[in-house]
Amino acid sequence: MFRKVAQLPLDYDLFKGKNSIFNWSPAGSVIFGNGSVARTGQEIKRLGGQKVVICTDEGLVKFGVVQKVTDSLEEAGVEYIVFDKCEANPSVETVEAVVELAKNVDMLIGVGGGSSIDPAKAAAILITNGGNIRDYEGCDVFKEPPLPVIAIPTAAGTGAETTPFAVITDVQKQWKMAIGGSYNIASLAICDPELTASLPPMFTAATGMDALTHAIEGYVSRALDPISEPILEQAIKLIAGALRRATFKGEYDKDSRYDMMLGSTLAGMGFTNTILGIAHSMAHPLGAMFHVPHGVGNAICLPVVMQFNMSANPEKTAAIAKLFGKDVSNMDLMEAAQVGVNCVFQLLEDLPIPPLSNWGVKESDIDKLAEEAMKGGDRWTNPRETTIDDFKALYVKCLKLKK
Amino acid sequence: MFRKVAQLPLDYDLFKGKNSIFNWSPAGSVIFGNGSVARTGQEIKRLGGQKVVICTDEGLVKFGVVQKVTDSLEEAGVEYIVFDKCEANPSVETVEAVVELAKNVDMLIGVGGGSSIDPAKAAAILITNGGNIRDYEGCDVFKEPPLPVIAIPTAAGTGAETTPFAVITDVQKQWKMAIGGSYNIASLAICDPELTASLPPMFTAATGMDALTHAIEGYVSRALDPISEPILEQAIKLIAGALRRATFKGEYDKDSRYDMMLGSTLAGMGFTNTILGIAHSMAHPLGAMFHVPHGVGNAICLPVVMQFNMSANPEKTAAIAKLFGKDVSNMDLMEAAQVGVNCVFQLLEDLPIPPLSNWGVKESDIDKLAEEAMKGGDRWTNPRETTIDDFKALYVKCLKLKK
Repeated sequence: MFRKVAQLPLDYDLFKGKNSIFNWSPAGSVIFGNGSVARTGQEIKRLGGQKVVICTDEGLVKFGVVQKVTDSLEEAGVEYIVFDKCEANPSVETVEAVVELAKNVDMLIGVGGGSSIDPAKAAAILITNGGNIRDYEGCDVFKEPPLPVIAIPTAAGTGAETTPFAVITDVQKQWKMAIGGSYNIASLAICDPELTASLPPMFTAATGMDALTHAIEGYVSRALDPISEPILEQAIKLIAGALRRATFKGEYDKDSRYDMMLGSTLAGMGFTNTILGIAHSMAHPLGAMFHVPHGVGNAICLPVVMQFNMSANPEKTAAIAKLFGKDVSNMDLMEAAQVGVNCVFQLLEDLPIPPLSNWGVKESDIDKLAEEAMKGGDRWTNPRETTIDDFKALYVKCLKLKK
Repeated sequence: MFRKVAQLPLDYDLFKGKNSIFNWSPAGSVIFGNGSVARTGQEIKRLGGQKVVICTDEGLVKFGVVQKVTDSLEEAGVEYIVFDKCEANPSVETVEAVVELAKNVDMLIGVGGGSSIDPAKAAAILITNGGNIRDYEGCDVFKEPPLPVIAIPTAAGTGAETTPFAVITDVQKQWKMAIGGSYNIASLAICDPELTASLPPMFTAATGMDALTHAIEGYVSRALDPISEPILEQAIKLIAGALRRATFKGEYDKDSRYDMMLGSTLAGMGFTNTILGIAHSMAHPLGAMFHVPHGVGNAICLPVVMQFNMSANPEKTAAIAKLFGKDVSNMDLMEAAQVGVNCVFQLLEDLPIPPLSNWGVKESDIDKLAEEAMKGGDRWTNPRETTIDDFKALYVKCLKLKK
């Protein structure tokens, strides 16, 4: 049914060069391809599942995406309960509602983006560990293996299908908690690019920039290890080549949807082991305080952060230029790195990403945002040291980005 | 203790292009770095192990490698039994001897090359499934999850630490059986490049060429999928850059030992999902009938097979030239592909790999060898269709290679 993989703590042994020891945690198994969602029922049956809860949202039910999953479950004779109240920046209360429904099931299925997959992962932890999800913030705080989770992404973005994190919002405290641990990786990801074909341009752009942020922040991370390195390079190359087409050609370019889904999945496999950088530290409070969608926050912060980080890791920033297809062979290192940064500014410019002001973020909010950003864990793997004043200056630049 | 990963059948859903569905099975977790073997005891303890059997050989005991493992086990308070009778091309009888010893242990540890790790994997299957190992030849024939296996490679070669195969020789039938299944992947690989530092040149060269054969046959495979692709590219690049130095500079070049171990591990992660080609089909009967070490057989067959396969996959063969550091930008495709083949012929020429005649292989044996090679499974993913007459002609070329 399942095979056993050694659970390694996430928060030790990041790569620190050839004189150190690092560990590498693989994702779960992956079934990838157009139409693969129709396999869901037979795979669950083969894994021994009889009854499952599906975590998803009302939109995905309405547009018939969830029915593709439930048709497959019915055909295979798997019982299911649909929980369709998942929301963007999923809350503690949502997780608790899933736990209530899932007391007598074998597995949880997340159908959607991080907003559906993360509550499934978090509920799976609570079902076997008890307590309150707030107890498990951080890395490897929970001890019992969670209920198995199957992740079916419907956007090429979060990489939640291959990562060991669930990000849950504490609404009262306006705080996004990361619950991490290599136990917290879905046992199986079913990645069907066709599920993303009808996503509207703005949503495709925002989720795609989220995936690009994972790939780039993982790639320039202080903890970039030599197993994750080629995986993240492939992710950047695929996303750089496909995101504009996926956004603007929509359903008519299946190829770009395929590449985006693949790039997002690869990015997740990599950043699981490299951790991220300060674009994420900045996007989380934008989500928690102003409901800025995670992909929009990352999209706007990414190039601004790359400019800030460039001097600390010009080699990898120059390599990004090449992965975007630029010929930098006749340039010196810093020129080439600047081309890498410019590629991402240009991509953001070309995509329909709304400005932060649309969510009411103002200059006067920056002190509080910077304070919250300092609390995030991703700062420790960012290539450049970051102070609270740096965060303030970076937020100012993000607010000024005109769209 | 362990996390659950969906066990996917190995023998279906190889990559067949973007219009098909493929599946991708990850390796187990990896702990990588110089000195990492000293972590063995604490990792086993953390995974809940109390008592283990170590599968290894007398040479590794004599040269103190096994003591590094047992010191770590003693420090952590893990009981152990050492089985030091593993041999090259490990036999059915060896597997049965391990099973006898391992009836009351929690885990098996393979310390060595495939000759030690494969019997550990095979015994782990028999302990939970019963019967005779001959019953389980093929893919996913056994049904119960095996006992967890921890693999500690002492050569950068087989990739047995990350692959779902155990190759066991039926001495009576002069036949090498592949026992495959994604259940059959070690739960944890502890990869310590320092363990390979004192390997003599001939052994370093042969095991290194084995790793290169995995990487190249996986890369040109019909089933090359876009997740394995960047992993195998990294493997080829690392091995191409390090194998001569590792062979001839031995202990004085830690860097090349590191790159070889990493390349071998990455190659294993990739070819698990792409399967191999006919160099392996040819090397297996050389081992079973003449005791030609697996790495030597692969080393000699690889460039000859690449020349044969070149027209069927010139794109990837040309890409191999680039991964070897050649500038092929001003060449046409077939010229560039020929450079890729030549790089491997040159590497074989430069390395101390003995000729097949050293093992008494003669022209008159070729009919029987070709017949056996036709039975291997790797032929189905080889880029070019191969007949029995092709195999005969290829063996003739291999025998003529002067060293």
